[in-house]
Amino acid sequence: MNLEITEKLLTAKQVNQLSFQDLGKVLGRDPMWVAALIYRQATASADEASKLAQALDLSPEITQKLTEFPVKGSLDPIIPTDPLIYRFYEIMQVYGMPLKALIQEEFGDGIMSAIDFTLKVEKEADPKGVGEASLKETRVKITMSGKFLPYKKW
Amino acid sequence: MNLEITEKLLTAKQVNQLSFQDLGKVLGRDPMWVAALIYRQATASADEASKLAQALDLSPEITQKLTEFPVKGSLDPIIPTDPLIYRFYEIMQVYGMPLKALIQEEFGDGIMSAIDFTLKVEKEADPKGVGEASLKETRVKITMSGKFLPYKKW
Amino acid sequence: MNLEITEKLLTAKQVNQLSFQDLGKVLGRDPMWVAALIYRQATASADEASKLAQALDLSPEITQKLTEFPVKGSLDPIIPTDPLIYRFYEIMQVYGMPLKALIQEEFGDGIMSAIDFTLKVEKEADPKGVGEASLKETRVKITMSGKFLPYKKW
Amino acid sequence: MNLEITEKLLTAKQVNQLSFQDLGKVLGRDPMWVAALIYRQATASADEASKLAQALDLSPEITQKLTEFPVKGSLDPIIPTDPLIYRFYEIMQVYGMPLKALIQEEFGDGIMSAIDFTLKVEKEADPKGVGEASLKETRVKITMSGKFLPYKKW
Amino acid sequence: MNLEITEKLLTAKQVNQLSFQDLGKVLGRDPMWVAALIYRQATASADEASKLAQALDLSPEITQKLTEFPVKGSLDPIIPTDPLIYRFYEIMQVYGMPLKALIQEEFGDGIMSAIDFTLKVEKEADPKGVGEASLKETRVKITMSGKFLPYKKW
Amino acid sequence: MNLEITEKLLTAKQVNQLSFQDLGKVLGRDPMWVAALIYRQATASADEASKLAQALDLSPEITQKLTEFPVKGSLDPIIPTDPLIYRFYEIMQVYGMPLKALIQEEFGDGIMSAIDFTLKVEKEADPKGVGEASLKETRVKITMSGKFLPYKKW
Amino acid sequence: MNLEITEKLLTAKQVNQLSFQDLGKVLGRDPMWVAALIYRQATASADEASKLAQALDLSPEITQKLTEFPVKGSLDPIIPTDPLIYRFYEIMQVYGMPLKALIQEEFGDGIMSAIDFTLKVEKEADPKGVGEASLKETRVKITMSGKFLPYKKW
Amino acid sequence: MNLEITEKLLTAKQVNQLSFQDLGKVLGRDPMWVAALIYRQATASADEASKLAQALDLSPEITQKLTEFPVKGSLDPIIPTDPLIYRFYEIMQVYGMPLKALIQEEFGDGIMSAIDFTLKVEKEADPKGVGEASLKETRVKITMSGKFLPYKKW
Amino acid sequence: MNLEITEKLLTAKQVNQLSFQDLGKVLGRDPMWVAALIYRQATASADEASKLAQALDLSPEITQKLTEFPVKGSLDPIIPTDPLIYRFYEIMQVYGMPLKALIQEEFGDGIMSAIDFTLKVEKEADPKGVGEASLKETRVKITMSGKFLPYKKW
Amino acid sequence: MNLEITEKLLTAKQVNQLSFQDLGKVLGRDPMWVAALIYRQATASADEASKLAQALDLSPEITQKLTEFPVKGSLDPIIPTDPLIYRFYEIMQVYGMPLKALIQEEFGDGIMSAIDFTLKVEKEADPKGVGEASLKETRVKITMSGKFLPYKKW
Repeated sequence: MNLEITEKLLTAKQVNQLSFQDLGKVLGRDPMWVAALIYRQATASADEASKLAQALDLSPEITQKLTEFPVKGSLDPIIPTDPLIYRFYEIMQVYGMPLKALIQEEFGDGIMSAIDFTLKVEKEADPKGVGEASLKETRVKITMSGKFLPYKKW
Repeated sequence: MNLEITEKLLTAKQVNQLSFQDLGKVLGRDPMWVAALIYRQATASADEASKLAQALDLSPEITQKLTEFPVKGSLDPIIPTDPLIYRFYEIMQVYGMPLKALIQEEFGDGIMSAIDFTLKVEKEADPKGVGEASLKETRVKITMSGKFLPYKKW
Repeated sequence: MNLEITEKLLTAKQVNQLSFQDLGKVLGRDPMWVAALIYRQATASADEASKLAQALDLSPEITQKLTEFPVKGSLDPIIPTDPLIYRFYEIMQVYGMPLKALIQEEFGDGIMSAIDFTLKVEKEADPKGVGEASLKETRVKITMSGKFLPYKKW
Repeated sequence: MNLEITEKLLTAKQVNQLSFQDLGKVLGRDPMWVAALIYRQATASADEASKLAQALDLSPEITQKLTEFPVKGSLDPIIPTDPLIYRFYEIMQVYGMPLKALIQEEFGDGIMSAIDFTLKVEKEADPKGVGEASLKETRVKITMSGKFLPYKKW
Repeated sequence: MNLEITEKLLTAKQVNQLSFQDLGKVLGRDPMWVAALIYRQATASADEASKLAQALDLSPEITQKLTEFPVKGSLDPIIPTDPLIYRFYEIMQVYGMPLKALIQEEFGDGIMSAIDFTLKVEKEADPKGVGEASLKETRVKITMSGKFLPYKKW
Repeated sequence: MNLEITEKLLTAKQVNQLSFQDLGKVLGRDPMWVAALIYRQATASADEASKLAQALDLSPEITQKLTEFPVKGSLDPIIPTDPLIYRFYEIMQVYGMPLKALIQEEFGDGIMSAIDFTLKVEKEADPKGVGEASLKETRVKITMSGKFLPYKKW
Repeated sequence: MNLEITEKLLTAKQVNQLSFQDLGKVLGRDPMWVAALIYRQATASADEASKLAQALDLSPEITQKLTEFPVKGSLDPIIPTDPLIYRFYEIMQVYGMPLKALIQEEFGDGIMSAIDFTLKVEKEADPKGVGEASLKETRVKITMSGKFLPYKKW
Repeated sequence: MNLEITEKLLTAKQVNQLSFQDLGKVLGRDPMWVAALIYRQATASADEASKLAQALDLSPEITQKLTEFPVKGSLDPIIPTDPLIYRFYEIMQVYGMPLKALIQEEFGDGIMSAIDFTLKVEKEADPKGVGEASLKETRVKITMSGKFLPYKKW
Repeated sequence: MNLEITEKLLTAKQVNQLSFQDLGKVLGRDPMWVAALIYRQATASADEASKLAQALDLSPEITQKLTEFPVKGSLDPIIPTDPLIYRFYEIMQVYGMPLKALIQEEFGDGIMSAIDFTLKVEKEADPKGVGEASLKETRVKITMSGKFLPYKKW
Repeated sequence: MNLEITEKLLTAKQVNQLSFQDLGKVLGRDPMWVAALIYRQATASADEASKLAQALDLSPEITQKLTEFPVKGSLDPIIPTDPLIYRFYEIMQVYGMPLKALIQEEFGDGIMSAIDFTLKVEKEADPKGVGEASLKETRVKITMSGKFLPYKKW
């Protein structure tokens, strides 16, 4: 992970009091993709890069950096220690094999692409929590959509 | 992973020509949860267990096994080699930190629960693929919903 | 772990001759939680952060840092080498499975939350040591309390 | 972990419909210690072993096994995948360094013994949950007590 | 890797004195793909499976096994010890980053698919070896062809 | 990997707007080999080094560095997180054993050299994509050629 | 390991031409313990710290550092590469289980404390080497003494 | 570790109610070495092997096994989970570098041999425990003696 | 490593009281290569295999097994625990980089082949030991000879 | 590995255009040992150190450094990525067990010392290459000689 540029972008975002939602609107992209761009897991077009630099009040030379292809992978290798991130690892541990069984039963031998792929995060009211509306009753909803790629034979 | 019981259940499922969808209807549960139960990542009530045993034409003694609390974790430790499962690990590698940044910006310091949690898999037509409707243009849609748990102070 | 800010806070604490107990009183929080905050494993409110900065005689800019969501995990991955910390790993090695068996027998299939969770450390006189009252006869008492979260079915 | 003997004991416990609480009373020991004994992390006296064999309706030859010194460690090495057990690893990750800081501030350079050590699990009503009394509002309370051992100089 | 079925297939292949080339012709597929099928890294259609069973003189029940979706990954995790296989790992170590740089310069931000992918092995005369034609002057030629998948933005 | 010199060379390449193709022509070498040289996985002759320094407008002292024997290995050890590079690791996981079986069947007991070895990357039109010619239908073609080395007996 | 302070102390020790033996006399402690203190594996009293600072001609501010509780562990994790240190790891590999068997047979279920523990190194003449007295015939004698701690029951 | 033969020997030792001390006398060897032999970390002479077989009332064919050269290493690789054995690993972690410093200062560049090496375990009264003589006041004394081997120059 | 066949061969070798030297003469090969064949790290010709089977008085079906290409690697991965084998790992740790420096200085950028390679073990009298001729003064001499392969450019 | 001093020595060696052969003559030592000294895997006498400093035209303070006992181990732990060095690891993987079998058959239970040990590298003409004398036909010859150390009994 290119820590330096990520830190510079995150600081500028904080100073300018902009949320990922705000930046998403500026670029015409989902906030999740913008977060991925800032953590250097995605590549901007020249146009997107200069819009971002402008919104964050950063010098244009950062534009170039944002259009380079990053070496991806935002986590230290192996198993994450941060509890929020670990839960996703745990979900894979517990539901990985069932997920494989279900996808293959319905789609055949192949994979869900992680490249032709989108990821969204939304806030959701917990059905049980209606009427109370306390923060505790909020749910996180994550939607992944990836193209199914069947194995080729030759 | 309790391989023996999982294998017995999967074989019975195949012999009886039942899909996870079919079993989901028998138990009144989502096919994903049924797959998790069969891979021994979830615990059935006595009623669910006997319905499943009956549908799969298995002796009642399997009922007891399905109501025991399993030691969870369906993957070999560390990094999975199966390409379908690996893609989920890669998604976490690439989008883990951006996801954390976005969830915390919107929900505060806490996590998405992997316990008070549901997971669904659906088939989705690829918008670009309309008209051709070939298998290749199918998309996998995965929806996760977990309660947000804020860190307690004391 | 954000080492720089932790070091600055620990040095200021030492210079001002304040114990975690003292800081706990200043913030109206348990000394354990204050230690977790200083090691950047917890997030302060703006009010808590400025009280801490004041008590430690630090410039207000540290306030902002203390309200940011940290990437958690205060140990190097895998197995700790420090003997004091290792003992907790050993306790988990020796008593992990028995603990799981007991909790599940009494509470059902689920977990003890590590988020809606508190942790206290107290000094305790060793019953065998009464009368001698030497330091050697002191015991460490640790009390954990976490909400039980049952696995959801869907 | 001596899996075979543990499995035999757990099966007998289930067949005889005895909880760890029941067995604790039979042996005059805490249920936690009995669980540790059954998972072969502790060593019984000849008397305790024969009481347990009798209660579980097992042949006396198991008595001998329970008095042998086990090779301890009930988890696979490294990082556990079972969510219930993982939470204890996470607690150590997040609160390990703060715990060290607090214990050393109050007790000096040394460790909490994991040998001259006891561990208890209790059910606790969640203060916030009073009146509703639903299962969801239950808390797990864990109390550890270990002798403090100061580092010797020579 | 499903060792049992692979061993049965390899033994039958040897007894029947058939090369992968021969089996490729029987199935109308590349010998490489047939080897992948036998090592249970690929899935046969019902027709392909029964042709293979017939050629190898095996009972039809193996047909079913060959049409199931395998858990893929034919190597022990991490780093292979067999010298022939290790060389491919070494090639990736030495030429991995240069390869990434070159592919991204020419194709943009994306990957070469390992799913919509073919792999061929051929014998090649070493230009320097002409005239001598000793075995030592033979070269191995490997051709990979995978669809380029660009990263999607959303 | 000698990161400093690689970074200097890549920056100069970008400033001078030269592709690996261009540099390949300057040196009379394949672009792949030039990329390997820039990532310090290969060693230049004095002549090649000074041609490269000149093309990239760098001071002659870099010439010396490029003729030194590098400690090779361009990836962090173990398993790469970058999706483009990981695919090659996955190919080895899935096709490693089949590849071994096929090469040994045709060549005998030995290996494909990774030293007397060449590697090429080409763009290839996807047969299915003819007429549309969209970027999505491009394929990456990789050709490896290594001398076969039979095991010596003594 | 706090490398900076260790390096400063070792340099000062060399400049002042003092052996661990000399420093042991200054502090009234075993040379082994002094070495442990310098490598920051032990904690000095204020008096011991200032004696050491004086003997090594260092500014008094190092005194404070030496009285802080160090994060212990003087080796990189896992398996040491230095031959002298590796031999102790090998001794544990070869004699670990026999040692456990013997200690438990004679002392019961428990451990030898590594906290209430002393360690000495001495030079010993090799009985076979008498008369020659060459350096080669010297033996290293290491004596460990740790309190036996029996497992507590509760 | 050759588990089968070790288990057979340990069972016979228990059935015959012989301690390692007893067996040491039978063979004219230290009990520690006998334990190492039984755990197959040492090689018996034909005479020693048949004495041991006789004492344990085992058929003579075990004699042959005990004279074979074992593949040594009695622990699972990496870090032991058994608390008794772990303490020796911890001693090496904490005192490894100080030990190296001290040995090299007194002996020069070289190692303590783990081959021309003996290891003894003794019971020792704790000076502080005199008068009480409780089991708790017992100490474990371990004495290692290894030939010093200086690095050769050539 | 194919343990079963290796064990059968080693047992037969012992029963027939044949040394590797004897078998080397039977096959007309170096004892080292014969040991490698028996540990299934090398492949026999049909003639060599049947000579070996005959010498060891084994049924001819073992002949076939010895002509198959083994999956090589005779050690558990990572770092060996057996002291004799570990020393070779240590030699590589200590002398690996110096060896690389020396070979590259004299031969250029390339490697010593481990395929076109021979390995011999001999007994050598220690020059210092002359006159005493005790076993202790024996030296092990190992000679490796591998073809130098220079890196190819393309 | 003390990288700084190694780098300074290697640069000086290059500037002064001296080969390891040249330095070997200056010090009256084998070039291999000199390379080991420069990579800080060996310890010089005061005399050797000052000869080397003089030959390399370095200030005398480097003399002191070269006489200190280094923490040895010139490779990153685990498995080396550099192809030249990896081949030695592979040799150990493939020939480790056969080597152990052969050495023990001829020498008894013990090891080849890596301390009382010498290592030489020589250029050797390939018998098959005579007449052509091309560089490609060169062989690397490595000779190791280590004292055999038998296991002590006690």
